[in-house]
Amino acid sequence: MDYRIEKDTLGEVKVPIDKLWGAQTERSRSNFKIGHEASMPFDVIEAFAILKKAAAHANCDLGVLSSDKRDLIETVCNEILDKKLNSQFPLVIWQTGSGTQSNMNVNEVIANRAQILSERKIGQDESILKANDDVNKSQSSNDTFPTAMHIAAYTVLVKNTIPALEQLLENFNKKAAKFNPIIKIGRTHLMDATPLTLGQEFSGYATLIEKGLHTLNTSLVNLSEIALGGTAVGTGLNAPKDYDVKVAQYISKFTGLPFKTAENKFEALSAHNALVESHAALKQLAISLNKIANDIRMMASGPRSGIGELLLPENEPGSSIMPGKVNPTQCEALTMVCAQVMGNDVAITIGATQGHYELNVFKPLIIANFLESARLLGDACNSFNEHCVKGIQPNEKRIKELVHNSLMLVTALNTKIGYYKAAEIAQTAHKNGTTLKEEAIRLGYVKSEDFDLWVNPEDMI
Amino acid sequence: MDYRIEKDTLGEVKVPIDKLWGAQTERSRSNFKIGHEASMPFDVIEAFAILKKAAAHANCDLGVLSSDKRDLIETVCNEILDKKLNSQFPLVIWQTGSGTQSNMNVNEVIANRAQILSERKIGQDESILKANDDVNKSQSSNDTFPTAMHIAAYTVLVKNTIPALEQLLENFNKKAAKFNPIIKIGRTHLMDATPLTLGQEFSGYATLIEKGLHTLNTSLVNLSEIALGGTAVGTGLNAPKDYDVKVAQYISKFTGLPFKTAENKFEALSAHNALVESHAALKQLAISLNKIANDIRMMASGPRSGIGELLLPENEPGSSIMPGKVNPTQCEALTMVCAQVMGNDVAITIGATQGHYELNVFKPLIIANFLESARLLGDACNSFNEHCVKGIQPNEKRIKELVHNSLMLVTALNTKIGYYKAAEIAQTAHKNGTTLKEEAIRLGYVKSEDFDLWVNPEDMI
Amino acid sequence: MDYRIEKDTLGEVKVPIDKLWGAQTERSRSNFKIGHEASMPFDVIEAFAILKKAAAHANCDLGVLSSDKRDLIETVCNEILDKKLNSQFPLVIWQTGSGTQSNMNVNEVIANRAQILSERKIGQDESILKANDDVNKSQSSNDTFPTAMHIAAYTVLVKNTIPALEQLLENFNKKAAKFNPIIKIGRTHLMDATPLTLGQEFSGYATLIEKGLHTLNTSLVNLSEIALGGTAVGTGLNAPKDYDVKVAQYISKFTGLPFKTAENKFEALSAHNALVESHAALKQLAISLNKIANDIRMMASGPRSGIGELLLPENEPGSSIMPGKVNPTQCEALTMVCAQVMGNDVAITIGATQGHYELNVFKPLIIANFLESARLLGDACNSFNEHCVKGIQPNEKRIKELVHNSLMLVTALNTKIGYYKAAEIAQTAHKNGTTLKEEAIRLGYVKSEDFDLWVNPEDMI
Amino acid sequence: MDYRIEKDTLGEVKVPIDKLWGAQTERSRSNFKIGHEASMPFDVIEAFAILKKAAAHANCDLGVLSSDKRDLIETVCNEILDKKLNSQFPLVIWQTGSGTQSNMNVNEVIANRAQILSERKIGQDESILKANDDVNKSQSSNDTFPTAMHIAAYTVLVKNTIPALEQLLENFNKKAAKFNPIIKIGRTHLMDATPLTLGQEFSGYATLIEKGLHTLNTSLVNLSEIALGGTAVGTGLNAPKDYDVKVAQYISKFTGLPFKTAENKFEALSAHNALVESHAALKQLAISLNKIANDIRMMASGPRSGIGELLLPENEPGSSIMPGKVNPTQCEALTMVCAQVMGNDVAITIGATQGHYELNVFKPLIIANFLESARLLGDACNSFNEHCVKGIQPNEKRIKELVHNSLMLVTALNTKIGYYKAAEIAQTAHKNGTTLKEEAIRLGYVKSEDFDLWVNPEDMI
Repeated sequence: MDYRIEKDTLGEVKVPIDKLWGAQTERSRSNFKIGHEASMPFDVIEAFAILKKAAAHANCDLGVLSSDKRDLIETVCNEILDKKLNSQFPLVIWQTGSGTQSNMNVNEVIANRAQILSERKIGQDESILKANDDVNKSQSSNDTFPTAMHIAAYTVLVKNTIPALEQLLENFNKKAAKFNPIIKIGRTHLMDATPLTLGQEFSGYATLIEKGLHTLNTSLVNLSEIALGGTAVGTGLNAPKDYDVKVAQYISKFTGLPFKTAENKFEALSAHNALVESHAALKQLAISLNKIANDIRMMASGPRSGIGELLLPENEPGSSIMPGKVNPTQCEALTMVCAQVMGNDVAITIGATQGHYELNVFKPLIIANFLESARLLGDACNSFNEHCVKGIQPNEKRIKELVHNSLMLVTALNTKIGYYKAAEIAQTAHKNGTTLKEEAIRLGYVKSEDFDLWVNPEDMI
Repeated sequence: MDYRIEKDTLGEVKVPIDKLWGAQTERSRSNFKIGHEASMPFDVIEAFAILKKAAAHANCDLGVLSSDKRDLIETVCNEILDKKLNSQFPLVIWQTGSGTQSNMNVNEVIANRAQILSERKIGQDESILKANDDVNKSQSSNDTFPTAMHIAAYTVLVKNTIPALEQLLENFNKKAAKFNPIIKIGRTHLMDATPLTLGQEFSGYATLIEKGLHTLNTSLVNLSEIALGGTAVGTGLNAPKDYDVKVAQYISKFTGLPFKTAENKFEALSAHNALVESHAALKQLAISLNKIANDIRMMASGPRSGIGELLLPENEPGSSIMPGKVNPTQCEALTMVCAQVMGNDVAITIGATQGHYELNVFKPLIIANFLESARLLGDACNSFNEHCVKGIQPNEKRIKELVHNSLMLVTALNTKIGYYKAAEIAQTAHKNGTTLKEEAIRLGYVKSEDFDLWVNPEDMI
Repeated sequence: MDYRIEKDTLGEVKVPIDKLWGAQTERSRSNFKIGHEASMPFDVIEAFAILKKAAAHANCDLGVLSSDKRDLIETVCNEILDKKLNSQFPLVIWQTGSGTQSNMNVNEVIANRAQILSERKIGQDESILKANDDVNKSQSSNDTFPTAMHIAAYTVLVKNTIPALEQLLENFNKKAAKFNPIIKIGRTHLMDATPLTLGQEFSGYATLIEKGLHTLNTSLVNLSEIALGGTAVGTGLNAPKDYDVKVAQYISKFTGLPFKTAENKFEALSAHNALVESHAALKQLAISLNKIANDIRMMASGPRSGIGELLLPENEPGSSIMPGKVNPTQCEALTMVCAQVMGNDVAITIGATQGHYELNVFKPLIIANFLESARLLGDACNSFNEHCVKGIQPNEKRIKELVHNSLMLVTALNTKIGYYKAAEIAQTAHKNGTTLKEEAIRLGYVKSEDFDLWVNPEDMI
Repeated sequence: MDYRIEKDTLGEVKVPIDKLWGAQTERSRSNFKIGHEASMPFDVIEAFAILKKAAAHANCDLGVLSSDKRDLIETVCNEILDKKLNSQFPLVIWQTGSGTQSNMNVNEVIANRAQILSERKIGQDESILKANDDVNKSQSSNDTFPTAMHIAAYTVLVKNTIPALEQLLENFNKKAAKFNPIIKIGRTHLMDATPLTLGQEFSGYATLIEKGLHTLNTSLVNLSEIALGGTAVGTGLNAPKDYDVKVAQYISKFTGLPFKTAENKFEALSAHNALVESHAALKQLAISLNKIANDIRMMASGPRSGIGELLLPENEPGSSIMPGKVNPTQCEALTMVCAQVMGNDVAITIGATQGHYELNVFKPLIIANFLESARLLGDACNSFNEHCVKGIQPNEKRIKELVHNSLMLVTALNTKIGYYKAAEIAQTAHKNGTTLKEEAIRLGYVKSEDFDLWVNPEDMI
């Protein structure tokens, strides 16, 4: 392969001739062969493109960068955002814990691409933009990377995760309304209990998602605070006055999202409170979705030897050996995603716990896990919604059969004859395989007409 | 030991003569010999006493319980709250997952104690109060236990955890103000970086706690919703109309806390969203406190061969073999508590994930872990605050020495001579073991007077 | 309360007159008011008693301690082991991370109790034994505490956890044999699948436990290595030659367990590999037990509107509101314990991860979580075994009904008519609510007599 | 895009004309748009290629498959293993929890590719191989997928993870030997303690890795057991006699690894004990590696204002803003990987916990997390070894300075003058900023010549 020579403060490095990156990217590429190439989420690269452009504008406004340089930087950033330079970001998650190498990857690509746009030769002619002095002006990896983390996280949440959850919520609300007349047996401890409606059950699911969404939306407030302007350790060294406020305004303008400068930059570099808080909301939703998916697949179990109260869409053959088998596969995909989110929460917890002094150096780990959770949860909710929830049908015949069988209808008698006599009726019916009514009358506790009046699933919901 | 005979719907059981509990408590005691006796947190028992009293009032107001019975129930509940009946609650966490047995323990103790207060014989004379029909009237374990969980959790948070965190926050704010003039070296990646003030560092700690507290306080909103009135499966079967609202008002009155009835009772029984959310806030605080405690003990390391920037109170001899050794033991206790909270978060996550149908049956596990985290975190913050933070002193001589040594002061030259020349100065000084100034002049990049003007820790913060 | 004055190297401390502990215990008591008193597991105190006695013997044999002192130390240690001094160990888990304060608690109690046994006055007459120089001779907290951790962990495993698991295994094997003739429907994805025997299902449970037990037993090898003799940092400073081997022999003799000195003391102080490995085995068992308990409660669900294949012992009334309800409470207690063990695994992971330099200072956290898991798992297995597994009965009528209903018996036709035609039969029967045989004949794919020959649950297991 | 029509038992599906997969793969592709395409690890696909080939051989040997069909299957499997068909496996992790769709993806690709190799038209001419009846003969997804999991896991461990750990171990052993003469200060609680050699410290690291490797190697025994032959639920329905043993022999032959048929197939399908056990060993190693990397970066902290005892290779510029900064980036990448492994352990735990009845349906989640951990840990160890450990140099001047400063050398006096007097010396020196010797003499506890004789770091290791 053909190479050109790139330099950094440690010396010369060979870089593939067709690549725009420079010495530091290349060093990272060869020093960190961990996992598959280019695993650093592209959301982070795009967030960098936005913030580099914003920084160029702020620097120019504040008189420390020429408008020519600003325009050049902006042009390349827009190319990145138009996905024209996707192959220029080869680095992995498992690099320096500050993400410095990905910051430099972006700086180097912008500088070298600007060179080409200016019809100069990379690595030969003098650089029109310097990666550190111009593209990275008024910045450090230590404030850009956490800013990119917030931009990427906020964006995926509002563009992917939250809309998916809102649609799922809407459908659960619809189902709750539609299923409201359907009386079914309740189950506690997996055992037969007093009845409720299928709509009431689904309203519980809707509430779970609604509350999780509320927690997630609340967490956006902290995510909207960005570290940019803190530079190396939070003091803002080498950044002009008011730069932090101005650069946040540009980011807000470019993204259409309400970013603002963090009040305390020391916290913003050294810890990841906001991502911890927001991922906890994702975990909370994962817990709830797991419960919902479990309930649905248990109620749909069968078709002949299970519970059989729900019918799920038959999306695909379920077995390579058992002909005609259909499985609750959307529930399975969703619960696997939930387990992943719970695991990711621990990875983030451990990474966030170990930040030292002025900088947490588990940044790439934290953002990679966050983005995976946010995206998988959004995608899985869409899939679950489209291919399962929308098509759920109650098996009304089966539901009716099961609720009328239940010995727990006896609970309605508590207020009439007391818990103890009611228990005796239920226990006797259980032992004899008879009905509650038969035993209630035989034991002499209730008259036939009273039984019909008092024990009525319709009145118990 | 002497016994009396108690009965329940499954038959007769021997109960120690000096105990007030009945058949179901005794069955649980003998069926669940798991871990040490009486491990069910007493906070839960006290919460039950409050809610039983509230239920009696609501039932009486709504005409389904006599005022005599209400008064009797109230009297015994007050005895429980006055800690006069502590030895009557022997059950363990590891019982039925609904907590039914602890609910019945409370019901039985109230009924039997009422018998004594009414000068009747337990187990012989007719019961003045029936455990199920009177004490448990309009209730189920399925709505009382989650209500007790919220009462206990909310109470420990506002009485213990939050005040402790607020005091710690106050002290960090004080320290931040006091340490503001002290310029010290910053450290990123554990390596020397540009300077900041010790006050700035402590302001970051204060912000971390402040944000965690905010998240925790936000979570109180959901914790204030209680399940009571849902009875067996959320439908409110066997509870009178308006009972749920009224009973919440009584609980609010008795606790002085803003409890209200949950909008969706199906969610309130079948899942534990609010506790999951609130414990995530405790975990977030644990993450932050771990970072803070780590930083402090690293800065205090030494006394002669470590960092040595901080002096911690010398509370006790640190070693049984090394004479004169003093250790950052408060940091250690706190970080151990943090690790416990993070582990508890996973236990709660797993328990909350597996709720089935109308009832989550990991309730005792969830509340026991929650209360442990809340209490340990509160206690540990108090201890850390009193015995460590308040007494932290800067070692100003050492701090000064370290900041002036640092090669990273060179960063101030970036905007004067560019990143590359600045790097050359720092690298040469590092290699030669010289000062930045010496090399800056020798390399011809900066004049002596400019160096003194430009490279000045005081201007870099 | 009456006090006496105790001294340590930091000065004087008031100690309650009726207590045997000294200045350092008292300092810890007042500096670490975190959680409830005396939470340090007593297993650890007993392990200390064993090792202090062993150290006294080894020291005496090696000529650095008089036989009088050795005998005095041994006498008090035996009193501790006879549980005569239980009230003398008030310290909490959340103290110094090395456990130094609990080590000193034991040293101080031994020294002061020896004073009394020698008819001298504590705190007045000269000490017959010095806590540091005699009782702690050739020791440091840094090697005694990890040694106590291994002794306590190993002991609870072999006395409680492993026997409980072995009994459970034995019963699952018995059930597997007994249930072997009972053919039932298999279920995959919770959906009807091809048949197997109930005995085969239970043999899977037995294998799960057997493999977990094997992993747990394997982990004992590393737990048998003890740190004692490493003293402060692993070098063995201030311990006589051969002391480490000799003291391990005494511990082995006193416990009847195969303890031996660790080959590398630096690892033994600075990390907790062996406990991490062994707790992972407990977690593996928790995962398996959770699966087993879940399966059993799902198969026992009903009694009328669930699966209903198993009948569990009816140990207690299940509901305070629903008369006659019985629940799978032993499964619930067990799965709650499993969730706790999984949470504890994360707490231990985090604690073990953060050890610094020569000493891991999360020792009390690690051992407290370990012992809790080991004991709860043992107790819960005993309880589950006694009150559930032993009494499990198959509901043969229901089992037969469900297996014969199943459309998945069609799988037997794959090798006769191919997967596609078999699928057509199953799908048609499902759609029409008919039997496989009816549709097989109607579609012309199988003759009636062939169907009876080929599709036979008895031949499919 | 051009399509052809493929069919399965649910009907017709359009498949891109240039793709070899069939209807079920295409259904999965459109039903599970979760995360990025083709996320199912290719290691699993390769394992499937091996087992399909082995099954074809076993089926042929046992007379249920023609040798022509066997040869065709083998040919395509070899193409997969030669990576010629990489673009034919588009499915994601987040599909059905049994992995059925990936099994069918392989079956369909083999069948269609065989069609082409036989010069027939896919989807038009009659199929020479049937995906279900031939390629999947004697198999179910339920036994093939767990078999592929074990093959893939075992292979990555022995080819990647274990060799990387062994090389790291070798280098730590070399360093331990080389650094043996270098006496340095020990640190406990991050505070100065008695001395040891740098070689002793590194021997502790070597032991940690050695023990973790031992646990990992032990876990291979269970991983070597494969489920194949259990078919749908573990009974082996539709597989010929002795097929399970024979197919395992072929897999063993094709991989060169000691696979054998699992003794209990019910356990092998319904749970993932072996992967849980083996991943716990990876987690144990992650814990140890985290500790090691932390120690190294702390000892290397500085260069001027930290500990500074070690010099790490300077692989790249460390900061985009601070010129000349170099960071312990390999330690950071490694500890991030460790945090990921710990998070993955929780994801696997949760997935493994929730298996129901005859089949655990979190299989793709479990194997994806396992393979990620195994590969990242292997890669990160290689990187850490090559780019950090090999190049570690002691800063002997600094090490000497720090050890001679230490007040904890006073410990050597314990056996001469007792712990209390020794403490007084250390405390006084600490207070006065003097040396131990000065104060020892001034206090009259030790004579000058005795001090020099007794207090000597060389004798304390």
